[in-house]
Amino acid sequence: MVLKLHGLPMSTSTTRVMICLHEKGLDFELVPVDLFARENKQPLFLAKNPFGQVPVLEDGDLTLFESRAITAYLAEKYKDSRNDLIRHESLNESAMVKVWSEVESHEYDPVVSQIVHQHFVAPMIGKTSDQTVIDENLEKLGKVLDVYETRLSNTKYLAGDFFSLADLHHLPYTFYFMKTPWASILNDRPHVKAWWEDISSRPAFEKVAVGMVFGEK
Amino acid sequence: MVLKLHGLPMSTSTTRVMICLHEKGLDFELVPVDLFARENKQPLFLAKNPFGQVPVLEDGDLTLFESRAITAYLAEKYKDSRNDLIRHESLNESAMVKVWSEVESHEYDPVVSQIVHQHFVAPMIGKTSDQTVIDENLEKLGKVLDVYETRLSNTKYLAGDFFSLADLHHLPYTFYFMKTPWASILNDRPHVKAWWEDISSRPAFEKVAVGMVFGEK
Repeated sequence: MVLKLHGLPMSTSTTRVMICLHEKGLDFELVPVDLFARENKQPLFLAKNPFGQVPVLEDGDLTLFESRAITAYLAEKYKDSRNDLIRHESLNESAMVKVWSEVESHEYDPVVSQIVHQHFVAPMIGKTSDQTVIDENLEKLGKVLDVYETRLSNTKYLAGDFFSLADLHHLPYTFYFMKTPWASILNDRPHVKAWWEDISSRPAFEKVAVGMVFGEK
Repeated sequence: MVLKLHGLPMSTSTTRVMICLHEKGLDFELVPVDLFARENKQPLFLAKNPFGQVPVLEDGDLTLFESRAITAYLAEKYKDSRNDLIRHESLNESAMVKVWSEVESHEYDPVVSQIVHQHFVAPMIGKTSDQTVIDENLEKLGKVLDVYETRLSNTKYLAGDFFSLADLHHLPYTFYFMKTPWASILNDRPHVKAWWEDISSRPAFEKVAVGMVFGEK
């Protein structure tokens, strides 16, 4: 039975899962959800995810939401297929994948998402970008990336010398962030820059990036 | 070698890990970190966690940070000890643990932590509680708990009919939230109330709750 992913090719949460599916070489059907028509707040969708958010993955009878839970599920179920994204054979390596995945969730995502939203989303919905919010978050982002720079001068990827979910989860928002006027914050840090160029040129991401046209219209 | 946990018995992140250690029946040494003296921002601590936050777990040569990564590591390493908190024998059940753990992280924690901080922390550091922030988050919390109420009318715990990390992660902040004037938001929802009474009366949590005196002085 083919995997069904409900979401949008420009949504950061949806693409987080799509990249994982491509990394694992899995076939899936992308079922579009019309967010503008609030399809995600209708009973049919709420039955799949009561929080009314994309993405949702249907794998036979199993219905999952929360993008990072879905990638972790796929990485576990298909751990022996292509790259092992959770390093299941090593307790220590898998622990580091968990640590740096949580860092993405709690240190990186809240900061970079605010910048992307203020820069791209606010104008789209008729609001003015709040430069104070952007500046505050740029400062926070700089501090987070200082930690990344030190980390990535010791290991090639965040969790160690292996590509993992911890890196993958960064791709969608960083891709949009690099289209803002502040990409230099990342490019000025040589190890972070090299890491970004590495992970963003992986074929699995390139397949997904072509649909990430948010902010281009 | 005994596990070393660096943190504070009143910190929500530290207690998240302590509860897990008690659930697993593991001995550990709690190494106090003097946050008021900014010990967590000194080189010795930053070498353990470059983000300068408690808790940090040292297990022999392995140093871990991010409370939810630590609980997931402990639950994996000691999966056969006492309660299996990640349901490793069932791919579907472990997927639901992942989903509801992410819900705690992204839907519940950001909302409840704001209320607790405004109510307890702001006055402690000489600021005025911002009632607008509290009200906004109480409204959001109500919506999240509506979803929980429906979920918990179908399953005894969040991920299914078994206690898991997904429930455990809720304990620290909910414990403090229940000391605010708005505990009725939770108590008015009978299935959520029954779930809270169940998980907060587990012996592993009761051992930890006695040290959670934040907001009482």
